[in-house]
Amino acid sequence: MNSNDHQSVVQRAQHHTKLLEALEGTLPAEALSFSDSVLLENSRDFGQLATDPVKPLAVVFPTDVAQVQDVMRLASEYQIPVISRGAGTGVSGAVHVLGDAIILNLSKMNRILEIRPEDEIAIVEPGVVNHELNLAVAEHGLMYAPDPASYKMSTIGGNVATNAGGLRCAKYGVTRESVLSLDVVLADGRLIRTGKNTFKGVAGYDLTALFVGSEGTLGVVVRAVLRLRYLPVDERDAYLIFADLESAVEGVQLIAKARIQPAILELIDRATMEVLDRQYGTEYANTGGAMLLIRLDGYGAEKEEAAVRDVFSQSDVKMSDQYDESATALIEMRRTSRGDTQDDAYRTGEDVAVPKSRMVEYVHLVRESAAREKVQLRLISHAGDGNLHPTFYVDPADGANPLERLQRAVEDSVRIALEMGGTITGEHGVGLIKKDWLPWEQSSDVIELQHNLKRLLDPQNLLNPGKAI
Amino acid sequence: MNSNDHQSVVQRAQHHTKLLEALEGTLPAEALSFSDSVLLENSRDFGQLATDPVKPLAVVFPTDVAQVQDVMRLASEYQIPVISRGAGTGVSGAVHVLGDAIILNLSKMNRILEIRPEDEIAIVEPGVVNHELNLAVAEHGLMYAPDPASYKMSTIGGNVATNAGGLRCAKYGVTRESVLSLDVVLADGRLIRTGKNTFKGVAGYDLTALFVGSEGTLGVVVRAVLRLRYLPVDERDAYLIFADLESAVEGVQLIAKARIQPAILELIDRATMEVLDRQYGTEYANTGGAMLLIRLDGYGAEKEEAAVRDVFSQSDVKMSDQYDESATALIEMRRTSRGDTQDDAYRTGEDVAVPKSRMVEYVHLVRESAAREKVQLRLISHAGDGNLHPTFYVDPADGANPLERLQRAVEDSVRIALEMGGTITGEHGVGLIKKDWLPWEQSSDVIELQHNLKRLLDPQNLLNPGKAI
Repeated sequence: MNSNDHQSVVQRAQHHTKLLEALEGTLPAEALSFSDSVLLENSRDFGQLATDPVKPLAVVFPTDVAQVQDVMRLASEYQIPVISRGAGTGVSGAVHVLGDAIILNLSKMNRILEIRPEDEIAIVEPGVVNHELNLAVAEHGLMYAPDPASYKMSTIGGNVATNAGGLRCAKYGVTRESVLSLDVVLADGRLIRTGKNTFKGVAGYDLTALFVGSEGTLGVVVRAVLRLRYLPVDERDAYLIFADLESAVEGVQLIAKARIQPAILELIDRATMEVLDRQYGTEYANTGGAMLLIRLDGYGAEKEEAAVRDVFSQSDVKMSDQYDESATALIEMRRTSRGDTQDDAYRTGEDVAVPKSRMVEYVHLVRESAAREKVQLRLISHAGDGNLHPTFYVDPADGANPLERLQRAVEDSVRIALEMGGTITGEHGVGLIKKDWLPWEQSSDVIELQHNLKRLLDPQNLLNPGKAI
Repeated sequence: MNSNDHQSVVQRAQHHTKLLEALEGTLPAEALSFSDSVLLENSRDFGQLATDPVKPLAVVFPTDVAQVQDVMRLASEYQIPVISRGAGTGVSGAVHVLGDAIILNLSKMNRILEIRPEDEIAIVEPGVVNHELNLAVAEHGLMYAPDPASYKMSTIGGNVATNAGGLRCAKYGVTRESVLSLDVVLADGRLIRTGKNTFKGVAGYDLTALFVGSEGTLGVVVRAVLRLRYLPVDERDAYLIFADLESAVEGVQLIAKARIQPAILELIDRATMEVLDRQYGTEYANTGGAMLLIRLDGYGAEKEEAAVRDVFSQSDVKMSDQYDESATALIEMRRTSRGDTQDDAYRTGEDVAVPKSRMVEYVHLVRESAAREKVQLRLISHAGDGNLHPTFYVDPADGANPLERLQRAVEDSVRIALEMGGTITGEHGVGLIKKDWLPWEQSSDVIELQHNLKRLLDPQNLLNPGKAI
């Protein structure tokens, strides 16, 4: 290290010290942590990246809006990036720490501020866990529809930041459709309120939708008005076993053509059935080549269930009996079937979406590509939405360059989706992991426009820089 | 006129002449009109404004995207505003001409480019009439859900520009929920594509939602990918007659609490019943004080109809018999019940939305206010969404200052909605008519942010300047 380098390291350390002192001077002691384990825990999400994240300078656990504003004002003054986060259950590296940064961990802003049953809305702080909200509103006969697989851990703030999907969005829409209004702390510490408290409202531009899914790069969400829905009066769960994946995907089309609108319509392939069998001691894999898991709800549930049975009555498709509890159990198993297979260096879960008619062709081409690369493949899909989650994995001991082969198979799967008019991410978000692929999907003009929007809202590039766009 | 003024008028005329020559040199003759009647027709929408619009310099009827780009390039070069429009059925003055402007009338870009039944999408040019699209996709068992009252005349481009609502959005969402992707010509003539062809997709910011509802102030939509839905297998229409408006609004709550999700749930008051009776020769007004018109659809329609009957079985509410065709007729009459009462100087239709639980209180307060001002009032409402359309009218011969009294009653009705946490516009848009009220609803920071967004996308302020924000 020469003396110039030395000087700049010292200056940087002094700058950080001043910022940390300012934070300590502004925030209550219990809102700040420098503990090594806390810094480490808050340095990443569930996404698997080639390079490890770095430790943040500090983790702030604000308990009110004013503290969030204080943090943003200090961050602006000291020009230090801020990464806001919730439970960190995302899988796209959106909250990975890349350099000097303060973490704004919003998990302690976890109050349900108001539930208004007659308005069918709830007003919450960002740290409220999705499941906790659903438990609370269920007492009023209501539900908050978006249910990402992480719903038992993930926060509403994180769901908003990623525009989370889930299983029920086949019928009830993704997070955007359930967010009516947001309070957002801007990069300079100002607080704005977007949207409205009503189901409809078209005053001005749709700023709410602009913040939803922006992965913490445009502002910090500190309050959300959410649309609730009445819990369905009836729910019917069923599974359908098909000879192979192709006929299961065709089954999805047949269900749509029969004008049936499932609340949940999940596809799992044989390899995933084997995983479930190993994990839960079931024996599905021997019964067929693919399954559809289906939930029908509301006043039409019974008739829709009968209609599904009609659709497949002349085929060799096996459908579960009415009220077969194993169908409900399978849906719950499916919900958590990615948790235990969390990505690691030799396993990558993907998240493309394609136009529904192309799903069979997509699976064919991706299988061919994986076979070429000697990469294993299993597949689950929110089939009602054309959202596919193939998981690619290699045995590190099997053959040369396993990681290169894995990467090629994964990138192929994304390119194939794009060639079909699909998207690189159906619901997980771009984060860090998919950033290099964004130009495969979007034109340079569109990417430039997004960078200009980012610059407009965050001229110093302090809000989760380097992510999402 | 002094010689300086004279010079500037001459210069302006010369500038216009050059622009018009450039347009003539660039566009085919049939794409341009300077005819007085065409200029006049294209100077306004259905909105009733105190001051008359001025005639545009020219009306361009482009037939392809390149022509739209040419117009925007010339407009940028000559710094002349452009107002893009469809059928002009809007009621907020969004396409009123305020000064020098070229009209981009997109009604001849009216091709349905593609219908993909298995993907449940349609790709259309902006000039396609909403109803025409629905006729075309119905052949495939599909529907395009948004159905503003103007659906037989209004274009998809106009629906997108205003984020149009309608009757069916109670169940199926507003236009935003049915728009997957847009091709947009920017102010400088560049063409971008936003969004995706799939139901889900979270790559980058939600630019599609930013353009939806922006009333032509951010870009010109030249192509839209629309989500379709399968037509319901069953539809049951019914009407319910209540003693008074209050019990009808309470009925809306009871239907929600019974977890029934109507496709259409419309409220009409006695004064509106009288209008319908006069217009169609029916005799509803004598039977009660208010009506709910309800459509239940899908596999659950029959059970939901029975559930509605159950809800009101112990009350004095009169419900139509099963399959009573007059219920369907009433829904159609309601759809068009604003057309014949088009606003004029002495009649103003409003479009607020309030949280659902406040609807009764809203009606009380607005009635009180109207009575104070000696202004007549009738009311219809998309009650399932809390979206209310009171119509205020005065007899010009009755009392002093009728227009001032009318204006006070109207403004009061908007302020009352805002005090309840509502919005100044549920579905019609801000346009020109509601611009002065936007600061009543939104903070100066939010308004400033929207102006900055506008500046980012349209630095010369050429796209429908002075509207929407």
